[in-house]
Amino acid sequence: MKIRAIVYGVGKMGILISKYMIEKGVDIVGAIDINPAIVGKDLGEVAGLGRDLNVIIRKDADEVLSEYKADIAIVAVYTDMERMYPIFEKCIENNFNVLTTAGGCAYNWSTHPELTAKLDKLAKKHNVTLTASGLQDSFLINMVTLMTGASHTITSVEGKQKFNLSRFGPVAIRQYGAGKTKEEFYESVAVDHHLKSALYSRLALETLIADLGLTIREMGERIDPVIGDENVLCEGLGTTIKKGLARGMIRTHEAITEQEIRFRFEEIGVVYTMAEEASGDVTNEWFIDGEPQLHMVTDRMSGPIATCAQVVNRIPDVINSEPGYVSVDRLPKLKFRAFPLHFYLQRGR
Amino acid sequence: MKIRAIVYGVGKMGILISKYMIEKGVDIVGAIDINPAIVGKDLGEVAGLGRDLNVIIRKDADEVLSEYKADIAIVAVYTDMERMYPIFEKCIENNFNVLTTAGGCAYNWSTHPELTAKLDKLAKKHNVTLTASGLQDSFLINMVTLMTGASHTITSVEGKQKFNLSRFGPVAIRQYGAGKTKEEFYESVAVDHHLKSALYSRLALETLIADLGLTIREMGERIDPVIGDENVLCEGLGTTIKKGLARGMIRTHEAITEQEIRFRFEEIGVVYTMAEEASGDVTNEWFIDGEPQLHMVTDRMSGPIATCAQVVNRIPDVINSEPGYVSVDRLPKLKFRAFPLHFYLQRGR
Repeated sequence: MKIRAIVYGVGKMGILISKYMIEKGVDIVGAIDINPAIVGKDLGEVAGLGRDLNVIIRKDADEVLSEYKADIAIVAVYTDMERMYPIFEKCIENNFNVLTTAGGCAYNWSTHPELTAKLDKLAKKHNVTLTASGLQDSFLINMVTLMTGASHTITSVEGKQKFNLSRFGPVAIRQYGAGKTKEEFYESVAVDHHLKSALYSRLALETLIADLGLTIREMGERIDPVIGDENVLCEGLGTTIKKGLARGMIRTHEAITEQEIRFRFEEIGVVYTMAEEASGDVTNEWFIDGEPQLHMVTDRMSGPIATCAQVVNRIPDVINSEPGYVSVDRLPKLKFRAFPLHFYLQRGR
Repeated sequence: MKIRAIVYGVGKMGILISKYMIEKGVDIVGAIDINPAIVGKDLGEVAGLGRDLNVIIRKDADEVLSEYKADIAIVAVYTDMERMYPIFEKCIENNFNVLTTAGGCAYNWSTHPELTAKLDKLAKKHNVTLTASGLQDSFLINMVTLMTGASHTITSVEGKQKFNLSRFGPVAIRQYGAGKTKEEFYESVAVDHHLKSALYSRLALETLIADLGLTIREMGERIDPVIGDENVLCEGLGTTIKKGLARGMIRTHEAITEQEIRFRFEEIGVVYTMAEEASGDVTNEWFIDGEPQLHMVTDRMSGPIATCAQVVNRIPDVINSEPGYVSVDRLPKLKFRAFPLHFYLQRGR
């Protein structure tokens, strides 16, 4: 029997995920979005599938969630736990497993202990699972842990993820400080909610450390502009960012564990130069120092495609999982699904 | 309670594994080797630990295996199933879990179906597990599968592992054809057992394909010399290999699956040039073509250290595993062990 899904959030990600789910044999039974431009339209039309799915995009989430039975809700709305909490709660109370693209909801045990414990308890009560997946799943967490399997001793783990801001919308590009002077950048860090509280990279690092069974003693963060040393054309803004101005930012987290292993992770979102564009959208790089030294680069990939493919490949794992708020380190090895997704369901679920 | 181990084979690998096991809190209770230069000596002395372990290296395997109780035997003797089979059989019959470095014994369902089925049955009967780990575990199998988790569609998977032959002994270096003319190389391929039947890379590729749930329709192999275009100094041979002669070989496996996904893997063992030495001993590189394209490089690592670290980190997984002949794709995510290895044992074993 096919997997049935609700798509909660029909933006750029929700659309690509819908297309991939259909191609992997998932039955989409409902779609929710509040964007008036698409409410009332068929999801197949909005997703550019060339055919109707007989799934009308509706704005009343309560109605859709109570009206349809489905195995899982795919939630791609906001990134932060504050705004996602009520959405998760509603999905879980209607007995849906929940899989979200929200990197800011990936591992909130230290950032939002009460909300996280409540979601964990609620999910267990309803015998469903809540998981956030996305680029971090393979490239910042599970592949890194797996590479440490070749380590006898580790003194430090250092990673970075670099991505091209140009593909984002103007609001996000400006949130990363692109086009600001150095002084404007540091002033805005003090007041800009996004700059101060985006949790994607912090939570990825916390999940990685938890996956290794280590305990964080201290964690620090800093945010700096990346100043361009040449003019760069920014498609997303439709302008050139002049040499000497910020073309994005670098967010650095450093953690030291009780076991004296040092972790450092840099998230680098910049408008790419021509030279950088040649190596693709996203580059991840990890150094592990110890015995032996290890080094990994994963690059030349499209961030949105890799994100949506990972989320869709995770669907069977989330449905199969024990109930609760389950981070990706605790799920089985993420892998390509050659067959329709319901082939990967365990019996008894 | 500490894990107890027998070391079966006290060569270069067995020595490094012994050192790592001691450092990770494993109790080595017995050691077996037939090399007269070390038989009768203490393992701690031979491993250069600076202290005795009160473990005398003995040559009679039957005596040692029946005399001592242990959780696991670490077997590093030969690489091929023909010669390893009786050793595995003996360890299993004495109720030891077995973990081996033998890359040629990693996944022999198609190359040695009868021996493999017998070992699987015997291991199940004795409620123990037989697994081969090593460099292929992370770098050719599990990290690759995990990266495919970011694939929506795959048309081909292409990998290569390149390593420096110089660190091997003269016999192995010559087996890879180093120093031969092109004509001598192709003549020796026809008669040299090693060139014809080394299974390391074939079995790694078969495990990867099995891990993805795919079925091989056709598999082909070819072996070619890598001809040097400069003189290279070979430490292991103590001579220079002249420009125009083989400085090693490239073994290529190509497979096509029933699902029309093409796999290609190249094992490249060459005496490194100065330029190649700068990027470390072993480099692994993988391209996945499809939606999206994916690319991974893992490099700058010492092959022997990474191999032995992986084998030691796998000890708890092998002890915890269901019984049988279990390849590494079926074990949990390999990871660094920050704590003594018995901390990772599941209760009830």
